[in-house]
Amino acid sequence: MSTPREETRESGRLEAFSDGVFSIAITLLILEIHVPTGQDAAPGALWPALLRLWPSYVAYVISFGTILIMWLNHHALFKVIKRIDNRFILLNGLLMMAITFVNFPTAVLAEYIERPDAQAAALFYSGTYVVIAIIYNALWLYASHEHRLLDLAFHDTLIREISRQFRIGPAMYLIALLAAFVSVPLSVAINAALAIFYAFTGSQSLGKPQDRHDS
Amino acid sequence: MSTPREETRESGRLEAFSDGVFSIAITLLILEIHVPTGQDAAPGALWPALLRLWPSYVAYVISFGTILIMWLNHHALFKVIKRIDNRFILLNGLLMMAITFVNFPTAVLAEYIERPDAQAAALFYSGTYVVIAIIYNALWLYASHEHRLLDLAFHDTLIREISRQFRIGPAMYLIALLAAFVSVPLSVAINAALAIFYAFTGSQSLGKPQDRHDS
Amino acid sequence: MSTPREETRESGRLEAFSDGVFSIAITLLILEIHVPTGQDAAPGALWPALLRLWPSYVAYVISFGTILIMWLNHHALFKVIKRIDNRFILLNGLLMMAITFVNFPTAVLAEYIERPDAQAAALFYSGTYVVIAIIYNALWLYASHEHRLLDLAFHDTLIREISRQFRIGPAMYLIALLAAFVSVPLSVAINAALAIFYAFTGSQSLGKPQDRHDS
Amino acid sequence: MSTPREETRESGRLEAFSDGVFSIAITLLILEIHVPTGQDAAPGALWPALLRLWPSYVAYVISFGTILIMWLNHHALFKVIKRIDNRFILLNGLLMMAITFVNFPTAVLAEYIERPDAQAAALFYSGTYVVIAIIYNALWLYASHEHRLLDLAFHDTLIREISRQFRIGPAMYLIALLAAFVSVPLSVAINAALAIFYAFTGSQSLGKPQDRHDS
Repeated sequence: MSTPREETRESGRLEAFSDGVFSIAITLLILEIHVPTGQDAAPGALWPALLRLWPSYVAYVISFGTILIMWLNHHALFKVIKRIDNRFILLNGLLMMAITFVNFPTAVLAEYIERPDAQAAALFYSGTYVVIAIIYNALWLYASHEHRLLDLAFHDTLIREISRQFRIGPAMYLIALLAAFVSVPLSVAINAALAIFYAFTGSQSLGKPQDRHDS
Repeated sequence: MSTPREETRESGRLEAFSDGVFSIAITLLILEIHVPTGQDAAPGALWPALLRLWPSYVAYVISFGTILIMWLNHHALFKVIKRIDNRFILLNGLLMMAITFVNFPTAVLAEYIERPDAQAAALFYSGTYVVIAIIYNALWLYASHEHRLLDLAFHDTLIREISRQFRIGPAMYLIALLAAFVSVPLSVAINAALAIFYAFTGSQSLGKPQDRHDS
Repeated sequence: MSTPREETRESGRLEAFSDGVFSIAITLLILEIHVPTGQDAAPGALWPALLRLWPSYVAYVISFGTILIMWLNHHALFKVIKRIDNRFILLNGLLMMAITFVNFPTAVLAEYIERPDAQAAALFYSGTYVVIAIIYNALWLYASHEHRLLDLAFHDTLIREISRQFRIGPAMYLIALLAAFVSVPLSVAINAALAIFYAFTGSQSLGKPQDRHDS
Repeated sequence: MSTPREETRESGRLEAFSDGVFSIAITLLILEIHVPTGQDAAPGALWPALLRLWPSYVAYVISFGTILIMWLNHHALFKVIKRIDNRFILLNGLLMMAITFVNFPTAVLAEYIERPDAQAAALFYSGTYVVIAIIYNALWLYASHEHRLLDLAFHDTLIREISRQFRIGPAMYLIALLAAFVSVPLSVAINAALAIFYAFTGSQSLGKPQDRHDS
């Protein structure tokens, strides 16, 4: 049996495949917004019906934003990785499975946010992100442990900074999850805030030329 | 915190991801055309049923054409861009979110164009394009402001020409939107005309070799 | 206004975008096969229910095969093309629109092949392929007229051979269409036979090294 | 008529197209999980409803994992292939058709695993994998027969090892199929076990540098 070190396959194909899954998973989100029906009664009924779909719009925007951020993080992660092995491919596959799954809790949240079971829907939605954040950490820990798969041209300070950023992810989404016990809108708002927060700070420190020894 | 100038990541991956979203969003449009059911009564009922779906065909063709033009503009825009930064990636993500969203107003238009609420559906449809045209302008203004992200090899006259072309976009789609208050078919026709107009003129002046200083 | 000759953009992006649309359009076909419902009555009802879906399987296989052949032809066509212009991009967009549309007549055929309106469904299905074959010819005629967009390294005999092959396409699918007036199964069988025929002969003569002057 | 040897087209495009189909087929699996409806009665009904969807989750995870493994095998296979011909493209198209089809038996399995016809659903599901494993063997046998399409830089021992690994595939999935006659959960468990087994062993021996004469 070959050790992971021996399987130095190029990471390009895996990144392209992952990009494909990301772009399809993010685009399929729109299929969860359904055309309102039964608005034939009178002219003027369509606007209110479209407005009543606000939970679908909110869920669409937050999930789209969150998957987009995850795609950015995925690229940042691949930038410091030099080679991949079989186990890394499998952990990445697990990540793809979880990210594609986001479509389902998004639809559940949109459907139930105004109904008695809103809390359960919000817990399910945030819980999915907690799981994804944990898988990201597993992927990163596997890749970075003793610099297993990393490009050694990057500074240790950068590696530690990335580890720190990934480590707070599950905690952040856990806060959004716990907030659902207090208030569903608060929980949803925290998820939205996290997408915006990561958008502006998340992957900024990754892969800058000055982080490399040879720069 | 790093300034945008420092984050000179290559734009290839972002363009590939955007291409993926464009091609999926444009292909999903077909899912909005539903097979007519309940035509069992007598032979000969299928043709009329297929013809009654004309609003779906019209909406499919116009939306397909419009997204195709948007894809062409997206390429033209990326051609004069030399580097990208975090904010550009986020604005581009907002654009992808809006373009994917087109599927929903397309389905709404197809469903309601022959019903009392046709005007609301037409306003919603054209309104989506107004928003997309505005996001395109925001993306271009951000990239071109003080030549922030541009390839300096291109002439200022080209930059000004692109700015002028992008600037008229929201006005054009606003005309289509306002036309819906007069006549829904007129509004839809203007949207169709805009797709054809941009198809033959829109991105022609972008990226020709003679626009570069070094050519 | 610039002449087409001036717009010598590289064809790589367009081919990648088209490949994306092809691969999505071909994969979405599976969504037209629906899980049989209401088979709860007794064990043993699922097999007959799955067998009764044979029209869906037949339509899936023929459409998958036909789109696959079209993808092969698309590549063969791009192989002898050296540059693209705006009009070629638009004709190609029209082709993508028609190929994506195949999903709908496929679903109609599967739904109606065993019902009184089978003939109408078969005409609609074959008619779509006739239209696609005509668009292919328009695309090829535009590209090859006076060698507008062709790689001049290819022999005229090859160009004439490709023209001949494309020209018989609409006639072939028209035969399948006309056969529906005689017998729906015959019409469907001709469509299947065409996919198999083109699979083994269609693009064989395209792009062989010995067809180039410089080989 | 040209012999296969003459058609030495590059395999890159075919691999990219196949990757597209793989990534779409794997992502569409999520559409088979439907939001539970009719849970308005009382708060607290959503959790049990989400739990009752376990067959959908199980089917999603196993199918996602299995298609992922198939994608890995596909890459391993392409790594030792030097050129492709028309027949190889067609066999690969047949493989893509079967892999896209997985979506349907997955949905059938999820729908029927708790109903009287669970056995039929499990047979249909495993049967699809048996067929796919057979097509993989046909593809490999065609490519490797007398080293028709192989990169001659690889050792015969590697070729024989790959042949051996592919050959046991249909037998493995046939065991999963036959197990359905004893117990449906056993059959499903074997399919899951096969995905895990192949994940850790399947493509490890493929394409290592030391397997090449010139390494």
